[in-house]
Amino acid sequence: MKIFVNGAATTQFGELWGVSPRSLARGSVSSALKDARIESAQVEALFVGNMLSGMLGGQEHLGAFFAEELGLPVPAFKVEGACASGGLALHNAVNSLLSGQYATVVVLGIEKMTDHKPEDVATALMGAGSEEERNAGATFPGLYAILARMHMNEFGTTEEQLAAVAVKNHYHASLNPNAQFHNLLTVEQVMRSSRVADPLKLLDCSPISDGAAAVVLSTKNIKGSVEVAASVVATDTLGLAQRAHLTQLTATQRAAEKAYRIAGLTAGQVSVAEVHDCFTVAEVLAMEDLGFFPRGKAAAAIEKGETRLGTSAGIVVNPSGGLKGCGHPVGATGVKQVVELVDQLRGSAGKRQVENATIGLAHNVGGSGATAVVHILKK
Amino acid sequence: MKIFVNGAATTQFGELWGVSPRSLARGSVSSALKDARIESAQVEALFVGNMLSGMLGGQEHLGAFFAEELGLPVPAFKVEGACASGGLALHNAVNSLLSGQYATVVVLGIEKMTDHKPEDVATALMGAGSEEERNAGATFPGLYAILARMHMNEFGTTEEQLAAVAVKNHYHASLNPNAQFHNLLTVEQVMRSSRVADPLKLLDCSPISDGAAAVVLSTKNIKGSVEVAASVVATDTLGLAQRAHLTQLTATQRAAEKAYRIAGLTAGQVSVAEVHDCFTVAEVLAMEDLGFFPRGKAAAAIEKGETRLGTSAGIVVNPSGGLKGCGHPVGATGVKQVVELVDQLRGSAGKRQVENATIGLAHNVGGSGATAVVHILKK
Repeated sequence: MKIFVNGAATTQFGELWGVSPRSLARGSVSSALKDARIESAQVEALFVGNMLSGMLGGQEHLGAFFAEELGLPVPAFKVEGACASGGLALHNAVNSLLSGQYATVVVLGIEKMTDHKPEDVATALMGAGSEEERNAGATFPGLYAILARMHMNEFGTTEEQLAAVAVKNHYHASLNPNAQFHNLLTVEQVMRSSRVADPLKLLDCSPISDGAAAVVLSTKNIKGSVEVAASVVATDTLGLAQRAHLTQLTATQRAAEKAYRIAGLTAGQVSVAEVHDCFTVAEVLAMEDLGFFPRGKAAAAIEKGETRLGTSAGIVVNPSGGLKGCGHPVGATGVKQVVELVDQLRGSAGKRQVENATIGLAHNVGGSGATAVVHILKK
Repeated sequence: MKIFVNGAATTQFGELWGVSPRSLARGSVSSALKDARIESAQVEALFVGNMLSGMLGGQEHLGAFFAEELGLPVPAFKVEGACASGGLALHNAVNSLLSGQYATVVVLGIEKMTDHKPEDVATALMGAGSEEERNAGATFPGLYAILARMHMNEFGTTEEQLAAVAVKNHYHASLNPNAQFHNLLTVEQVMRSSRVADPLKLLDCSPISDGAAAVVLSTKNIKGSVEVAASVVATDTLGLAQRAHLTQLTATQRAAEKAYRIAGLTAGQVSVAEVHDCFTVAEVLAMEDLGFFPRGKAAAAIEKGETRLGTSAGIVVNPSGGLKGCGHPVGATGVKQVVELVDQLRGSAGKRQVENATIGLAHNVGGSGATAVVHILKK
C-alpha cells in the first residue's frame, strides 16, 4: 500500500500577535482540504503535532480541541516529541493509513509562541531536554553551542561558515511569501550580531514563531499527489553527556539510513531537502548525517553555495528558508517541511522552485537530537 | 492481521511519595517484558500515554525520555488526550503494528501527580476541558455534577445509587493488591462525605494518584496472549454547552458501536468491563452508553449488585477497583484497564477473578467525554 500527500498548506509564519491558535488551525487545514479537493466529511482522523500549548497556555487535549474547532468529529490525537512533534504526528498518521484503520487523515502541526513571555518560552522549550542538563542551567543555544564548538575543533569549521547557513536561508526565505523573515543577511551581519552562546550568535538561531501547517494524507493517488516513500523515526539520549559522538547526531543517521533503504534510494538521488536548522550548526550536522556531504566537508560546501537555490554542484537545502528564515513554530515545523517539499515536487514553488525536483527529504529533530524523523517524498 | 497483548503489568497505584516517574516506568515495563518473556532488544517502538508531565514537571519529549530510561533505543512517541492518553497511546500502537512498520511494541501509561500542589494539579487537569468553561471557573467535579444532576432529573437516579458505584469499586479494590485504596465503604459513608460539587461528594470522586501500567503488543499469539479484537476512538465537543445530550456521552456510544461491529460482538457478550469512573456518575453513564443496560436503568442495577463480582444477573464492572478504588494516574488509566482485562481473561486475577471471563471491554474517557476509547479483548 502506498501513502500520498493529497493536499498541503501552511499559514503565514511569524509573530502573529492578532491571530489565535484556532484561527491558525482553521487557516491551514481549510487550505489543505481545498488543495486536496475534498470536503471535511471525508476526513477520518486528525493528528495534531504540538509541544507547548499545555505548558504555556494551559490547554491540553488538542486532538479533541482542534477536531471540534475544525468541524471534524473524528478520532483525534496529539502527538508530542518536542520540536519533532510535527514529524512524529506525520509518522503516526502514515501508520494509521497503512493499518487500514483510516483512509484519509489530516495532520496539523501548530504552535503559538509569541503570546508568552520569552523567558517562559525558553523555560518551556527546555522541557525537550535532559532533566540533568536542564537543572544544571543548560539552554538549547548552549547545547548546540557545544556541538558547534566540537565541530569547529574537530573539522576546522569556522564561524563564517556557520553564518553562511543563515545567509542562505534568509535568501531562500526572501522568496517565500509565508516566511517569517524577508530580509537578506550578510556573513558580516551574522558575525556582528550579539553572542547568545559562544560561538553561536543571535543570527545563528532560529526565531520564536507562530504558525501552522497541514497536510491531507490518503491511500489515493489523485492529481497533484506526492508519494510518501518512507517515514522513519529514531531516538537517542536526551542529554549530550550520554552521547558517544558530539559532532554527529546518531538518531539522524539511523533514521536516514533506514529511510533510504525503505525508499530504495541513496542520498545522492535526493533533489531537495528541508532540514532542521534550529541553529546554523544543526544544518551542517544534518548535511553530514543525512549523507549529502562527507563528514567535515559540509560547512565549506555550504559556504561555496552548493546548497543554495540554483546550485549545480550539490543539493538545494531549505528552500522554504528553513527554521532560521521561514520560522520555527515548533509543532508546525515537521509538517511545514513536508508542505514545502510537496510544493517543490509539484513544481509550484514559484521563485524558490528547485529545478527538476523529483525526490524530497524532510528532516525534523527533537531536542538536541534525541528524536529524529526522516520523510522521503517522491513525485 | 491480528494483534495480541503478550505481556501486561502495573505498578502499585497510590500516593507514592518516594517513587520517581523513572522508577514507575522501569517497574511496569520490566514486568510487562518479563510477562511477555521477551528481551528489551526485541522491542521496536515505544508509545507513552501521559498528560501532565509538561504542565506540572516541565518535562516533555517523554517518548525519547522514557526510551532512554528504559534502554529502548527505538522510535518513541508521547500521545496525549487528557485522561484518555493511555487509550490513545494504545490505539496508535495497535495501528503501528497493523501497518507492518513494527512487529513488537511497548505501551507505557504513566502519571505522577502527588508531588505537586493539589491546586496546581486541579488547574492542570482543566487543560483537558473547554477553554470557555475553564475560564468561567468550571472544574471537572463541577462538570460531572451537571451530568449527574441531569441524569437524576431525567431518570430519577438517586445519590444513594451513585454512592453504590463507589461502594462496589472500593470492594473490588480491596481485593486488588495494586489498588490505591483497600478500605471498604458504605453508602452512608459516601453520603456523609463532604460535598465537592453538588450532588457529587468527596467519595464520588476518583483520587489524585501516581502509577504506571505497561503492555507488550505484537502480532504473535504466544501462550498467555490475549487478542485485541477492536481498538476504536471517537470524539465529541470539549465543552458541555455544545452537546446535544447531557445524560449520555455520544463519543462513548459511537466508539462502542464501532468496536462491537469490528469485533463481531454485542454488548451482551462482554464478560467483564473496565470503565472510566472518574466520578460515580460516569460509571452509570458508561453502563448505558456501552449498551450494558437500557437508558435510565443502570443506576438501579448497580445498586442491586448486578455489576459486582459474583453477580449472576449482569456483567462485572471495574474488577480492578476502577478509577475510584484502584486510583487514577491519568495517563496510566487506559493502559491499566487493559492490564486488568488481560489478568481476567487469563484467569489470573486471583480473588477478583470473574468466572468464565472470555470477552473484556476497556472504556477510557478524556475530559468530560470529548474523547472516548474502547478496546475489546478476547481470550
